[in-house]
Amino acid sequence: MLGIAIAGLGNVGSGVARLLSNQAELIAQRAGRPVTIKAVSVRNKKKRRDCELPGVEWIDDPRALAKLPGADVVVELMGGAEGAARELAELALNNGKHFVTANKALIATHGASLARAAEKNKLQLSFEAAVAGGIPVIKTMREALAGNDVTVVRGILNGTCNYILTRMELAGLSFDEALREAQEKGYAEADPAADIDGHDTAHKTAILAALAFGAEPDVKTIAIEGIRRLTPRDLQFADELSCRVRLLGVARLADGKLEQRVGPALVPKSLPLAQVAGALNAVLIRGDFAGDLMLQGLGAGGEPTASSVVSDIIDIARGIFVPAFGVPGSKLKKLHLAAEAHAAQRYFMRLLVADQPGVVADISAILRDEHISIESLIQRARSTESVPVVMTTHEASADAMKRATAKIARLKTVTEPPCLLPIEE
Amino acid sequence: MLGIAIAGLGNVGSGVARLLSNQAELIAQRAGRPVTIKAVSVRNKKKRRDCELPGVEWIDDPRALAKLPGADVVVELMGGAEGAARELAELALNNGKHFVTANKALIATHGASLARAAEKNKLQLSFEAAVAGGIPVIKTMREALAGNDVTVVRGILNGTCNYILTRMELAGLSFDEALREAQEKGYAEADPAADIDGHDTAHKTAILAALAFGAEPDVKTIAIEGIRRLTPRDLQFADELSCRVRLLGVARLADGKLEQRVGPALVPKSLPLAQVAGALNAVLIRGDFAGDLMLQGLGAGGEPTASSVVSDIIDIARGIFVPAFGVPGSKLKKLHLAAEAHAAQRYFMRLLVADQPGVVADISAILRDEHISIESLIQRARSTESVPVVMTTHEASADAMKRATAKIARLKTVTEPPCLLPIEE
Repeated sequence: MLGIAIAGLGNVGSGVARLLSNQAELIAQRAGRPVTIKAVSVRNKKKRRDCELPGVEWIDDPRALAKLPGADVVVELMGGAEGAARELAELALNNGKHFVTANKALIATHGASLARAAEKNKLQLSFEAAVAGGIPVIKTMREALAGNDVTVVRGILNGTCNYILTRMELAGLSFDEALREAQEKGYAEADPAADIDGHDTAHKTAILAALAFGAEPDVKTIAIEGIRRLTPRDLQFADELSCRVRLLGVARLADGKLEQRVGPALVPKSLPLAQVAGALNAVLIRGDFAGDLMLQGLGAGGEPTASSVVSDIIDIARGIFVPAFGVPGSKLKKLHLAAEAHAAQRYFMRLLVADQPGVVADISAILRDEHISIESLIQRARSTESVPVVMTTHEASADAMKRATAKIARLKTVTEPPCLLPIEE
Repeated sequence: MLGIAIAGLGNVGSGVARLLSNQAELIAQRAGRPVTIKAVSVRNKKKRRDCELPGVEWIDDPRALAKLPGADVVVELMGGAEGAARELAELALNNGKHFVTANKALIATHGASLARAAEKNKLQLSFEAAVAGGIPVIKTMREALAGNDVTVVRGILNGTCNYILTRMELAGLSFDEALREAQEKGYAEADPAADIDGHDTAHKTAILAALAFGAEPDVKTIAIEGIRRLTPRDLQFADELSCRVRLLGVARLADGKLEQRVGPALVPKSLPLAQVAGALNAVLIRGDFAGDLMLQGLGAGGEPTASSVVSDIIDIARGIFVPAFGVPGSKLKKLHLAAEAHAAQRYFMRLLVADQPGVVADISAILRDEHISIESLIQRARSTESVPVVMTTHEASADAMKRATAKIARLKTVTEPPCLLPIEE
């Protein structure tokens, strides 16, 4: 028998409890032994929950789960990079309990030291549910692609943002309208900042980068941009260029240097990531032998996330032990950041300019001075107001693009800050 | 150290050798110990191969690998459900060697007895490379979805067929033209029958069904239809109905009864499987908790397939032991087949009919008599020759559809055999 102690009994926690009880027989068969919840710890015992827990001990202090006799695995579903979650992780691993979590902030921030604590004590640290909900991207990178040299990972890791972008594109909604709709449908929180400003995606990207490159997760060095400033017009121009706009987390290793960033990007419609619509998540992993592998599915919600937590638990019951980030904690590299200037790629720029002669000449001169070559330029029909100018460039360095964009923004004829997006190919 | 013996050194075998040697250090780190090829067995020693094997023993009889001192794992890459491959599998598992294979015919035919032999001897039987090349669908079903009740699996499992269908659709090529092009590009064999007639997909479908439902693989009961009789016109009509035609392997469990079939089907363009183009493979798995999960990638080729073989080897080096089909061999069910009449779904039917009054009335009467209701019917412009009639039906049983189609085919005004395809939603 494998004994489980769960800290936190929200949507995910009660999903785990339901799954372990609904499928008890099947899980015992697959796991090789019964899996039983011994204790739970919740903030509010009186809250109604969508699960039954007969014979389970209710404990006030989550930290007490780390020392509970009969519990082999502590499952942390409280959230937060510090405080109770971090304390519980350290206590559990130092008291002989395996540790399973859905906490992306904790793993992105303290993953390396927790991995070392787990290995020192010959325990498993698992976090399948921390990235992309029900999609088994951690197992895929840690085990299925273990023979591959992974060079780049790109993910649509936030269903809220993908829902908003899809609705802006297909229904022509403004950002605010699409956000309100997402909140009404339960795809966005009342305070949506962590999602729409890219922080949630950044945590997940740091974890994927660590797995891909055998490195310590390092969320602090990720350049983060959210989706607030996008307009339906940007998405329509992208559409005319046969692209869609997606909020991507990208981790790439080139010449031993790490590039990590989160931000909206144009994705050509011919690529599978562009096909990912609505609240779905997807991750594309490029391995030198496996080629491009894409996983797509439900990236949030109590039941998909519970599915991932339970798969971590079954792995532990089966006696599977795999280093948390694929390589031993002592071998996790500290990667140097790539100078942004190295990462050349194509760009999309949308401007609003005064409709008068010479504007395009000024813009072109600025780009020429930064050695950036224009691939296409569209200026819309003349009007008395500002008119949009949309450009795509050939490959250019991020530094040069940023300098050019700053200079263009200062032109008197440019009437609002330019919208600059990389094109991810 | 983990010692490997490889039987068969074609594209996949030499890919495995290259990967184990190129990435020796990384793999040793991830696997926890070095992985070394001890011996290989090939039919023709003189053939030039794209890998170097210094210090490796060359052995004539593959069966001798099963008793080779120093080999912990036998990797079988010869193919075939019987003969040398089967003998080697049984010998290896009965002589204390783990057994890794890319052989779908062997696993689809003898998987259950091999799984039991492996478990009796506490050895691992692994076959990630047997289904969908570099896509980790076996691990995903066996481990990542272990907590889920899987109800249906649908796969595009043959890149040759998907390439042909994509070219027929996008370039309007005939089946023969698209096949010839696929052969020229190396996507189809000189003898393409196993691919285009669906047998390759059937082997893979049987393996996925076994994993999904904890049952013995049973390839003999799969209803198989290939893609030879499809015309570009069928694909164009599908397009007008916002669908694409894909060769699918489908395994479904309803009321404890198994439905397994392979054949072309219409897939609405809004579904992710319809977006899978060219020689790619994809598998969509529906779990009760995880929801719809899709994996997409390279389903064939030496390097992607080698990536899967090596991931099986690294799992063994890490000491991971998981029952071959997710549940113990002794618990594998023998599922009863669903009577086809139970599997109600929508259908597409394309007819060529003489352009004269009353034809549609005759067809409608036949369908009415079988209680099949027409959802849409298009009759093309009048002409002196035969004209196409395209229908879609509301949900109907397979049996009723077959009876109706047979009666329609016998109408004098119907000038060639009807094309009947299910619509997979």
